[in-house]
Amino acid sequence: PNSKLPDVKTTIFTEMSLLAQQENAVNLSQGFPDYQPDENLIQYLGDFAKQGHNQYAPLFGIKELREEISRKFNLQYQADYHPDSEINVTAGATQGIFTIISAFVKKDDEVIIFEPAYDCYEPAIILNGGIVKNVKMLYPDYKINWNEVKNLVSEKTKMIIINNPNNPSGKILKQKDIDELIAIVKNTNIIILSDEVYESITFDEKPHLTLAKYPELKERTFVVGSFGKLLHITGWKIGYVCAPSDLMKEFRKVHQFNVFCVNTPAQFAISKYLQNIDDFKSISTFFQTKRDYLKNALKETPFQLLDCEGTYFLSANFGAISDKQDKDFCYWLTKEYKVATIPFSAFYKDKTDEKVIRFCFAKKQETLDRAIEKLLKIK
Amino acid sequence: PNSKLPDVKTTIFTEMSLLAQQENAVNLSQGFPDYQPDENLIQYLGDFAKQGHNQYAPLFGIKELREEISRKFNLQYQADYHPDSEINVTAGATQGIFTIISAFVKKDDEVIIFEPAYDCYEPAIILNGGIVKNVKMLYPDYKINWNEVKNLVSEKTKMIIINNPNNPSGKILKQKDIDELIAIVKNTNIIILSDEVYESITFDEKPHLTLAKYPELKERTFVVGSFGKLLHITGWKIGYVCAPSDLMKEFRKVHQFNVFCVNTPAQFAISKYLQNIDDFKSISTFFQTKRDYLKNALKETPFQLLDCEGTYFLSANFGAISDKQDKDFCYWLTKEYKVATIPFSAFYKDKTDEKVIRFCFAKKQETLDRAIEKLLKIK
Ligand SMILES: CSCCC(=O)C(=O)O
Ligand SMILES: CSCCC(=O)C(=O)O
Repeated sequence: PNSKLPDVKTTIFTEMSLLAQQENAVNLSQGFPDYQPDENLIQYLGDFAKQGHNQYAPLFGIKELREEISRKFNLQYQADYHPDSEINVTAGATQGIFTIISAFVKKDDEVIIFEPAYDCYEPAIILNGGIVKNVKMLYPDYKINWNEVKNLVSEKTKMIIINNPNNPSGKILKQKDIDELIAIVKNTNIIILSDEVYESITFDEKPHLTLAKYPELKERTFVVGSFGKLLHITGWKIGYVCAPSDLMKEFRKVHQFNVFCVNTPAQFAISKYLQNIDDFKSISTFFQTKRDYLKNALKETPFQLLDCEGTYFLSANFGAISDKQDKDFCYWLTKEYKVATIPFSAFYKDKTDEKVIRFCFAKKQETLDRAIEKLLKIK
Repeated sequence: PNSKLPDVKTTIFTEMSLLAQQENAVNLSQGFPDYQPDENLIQYLGDFAKQGHNQYAPLFGIKELREEISRKFNLQYQADYHPDSEINVTAGATQGIFTIISAFVKKDDEVIIFEPAYDCYEPAIILNGGIVKNVKMLYPDYKINWNEVKNLVSEKTKMIIINNPNNPSGKILKQKDIDELIAIVKNTNIIILSDEVYESITFDEKPHLTLAKYPELKERTFVVGSFGKLLHITGWKIGYVCAPSDLMKEFRKVHQFNVFCVNTPAQFAISKYLQNIDDFKSISTFFQTKRDYLKNALKETPFQLLDCEGTYFLSANFGAISDKQDKDFCYWLTKEYKVATIPFSAFYKDKTDEKVIRFCFAKKQETLDRAIEKLLKIK
């Protein structure tokens, strides 16, 4: 029997990670660190389980963690979310996103997304009977054409999904983008889903402009975050959603019947770990070093690099190497040069192919060196 | 802005656990153990995190755990599920159930459920535009009237949701029920969702009849299970879904965009722990002792006990004590006698009130004793 997603395939990240394994290639495809998180964080996980924190957490998430999320928003962004009524812990950012879309998008509602778009938005919209309206961000700048957005907005527009910093392009929103967005949603009922899972990873002193900072946006926005990205624990599957209480109330109605609650010992470990952090800048520094290392090395290859302002992804045009379709190029690169990457076309609904692929640099030095050695052989 | 679930409230389990806390009452409401799981299991969690298992698991779940789930079905039920194509690990059974319903139920599809029904089925159906068709199981037997089911089945019937052993009634399906179900679904396209989270907890040598054992049912059935219940770790949020590969394929399309994958160190810990278990009977014995202890004590009170064949819930009619509405009675019992329970009406769509409440006996001896001491005071 067919499901409501007859055409969906296994996500590109799984496909490429499997291929990397088969081909014994260096895996710069799926976005996850190949090094260990801080050993204190790991120690806490075992400790809290031993201390008896192994049963259901509250459906909102444990209070200690919600308080740390609230403190983080204050500290980093001077933005206020109340721990009890405006914050909810989720089973990873993905579950937060799926739950927001499921809660609000119904048959024939339109949702505006920006392509290249992370691959979980569209299926969730379609599953709920919604209609996807794409705005393309174009090579090489991947800027948002706000006039196009303006023209798409109508009575039917239920939601706009922003991804800032953007995966895969590495672009971040500027004040001008924020102003345009404010003008567009003003006097509408549009809900904004702001996927900010890479919020703590921006480079060259460029600030992350969380939508939580702008009252005209915050009042209608779900901000989604990820401890997987922040603390190098993608496999713990702990994220969070913040929103004004009226929106949060609706979110929780669905969240409680999707997962009810989230892994308890991991929540305790993360909250204790965050209590000792007073400054989140070191994460950007950590990744900027990696970005620069990969960037400098790739300059010696025929790849044409994109500007990477945030995220842990560096992208590049391969037009000087091949005119293969980008996914074919990724297969070829994995098989011939033993480096796995992600093709940008996976982030588009139609057959857009700007000959761009994405490298993940959340990898240890040794892994980056192995990849670089192979990539330098490309003529 | 309203969501698609305008009328939904916070789940009764959260409501009653909060009340128990406020009233400093013994909490026999929400179903979770108040004792620790096996210390080996806990040790493994910390160990695997230290050994470096902190990044994304495969979206199917880790191979080691899928293999243990497959072995468990063979060992306990002589049922076959292939670890690669027919088993998926989930963020608790609830996420499995929500994902199954989201994958298949679309606008105007009808889904048959049996009341009293666990509270997560109906909202998931409604959220997806489906129509709930209730079949009431009646006090005191809570048997399924299969003629009623037969009359409800039509072209529009997309799914039937079974919960066996049943929460809250403690009833289990008999061979006769299975035969009736087989006859009803034969030559239809109906999908069965079999919520068997209490599968390992049946009493008095009565067998659990998993639908996985009956080829005529298995071919169309999702069986949902829970390690929270099996291993006393409700807060780890690890469950599983099994189904023939054609159904599983569709499930995974949605699962990957709902949570993508599930807590990695917990998956490793559970799979290692299961490797040493060759017999799951001790779990029933463990809970039967607790059931009998609570049952014998409650016989000295005016409560009229229901027959409890499985689950870790014992239910009772309070008609001899009060003619309050059952939820009011639960509030009164919590405030006046300091024991929190769950009213059966929370498991019905309409105002059904058979004066029945549910006690959770997955509690340590000391907790049961404290509750019993208080309950014995009721006149
Ligand atoms: C959930 S697997 C994908 C990880 C990721 O965020 C990415 O590679 O873009
Ligand atoms: C997810 S909270 C509810 C726990 C439970 O299964 C029950 O009490 O019935």
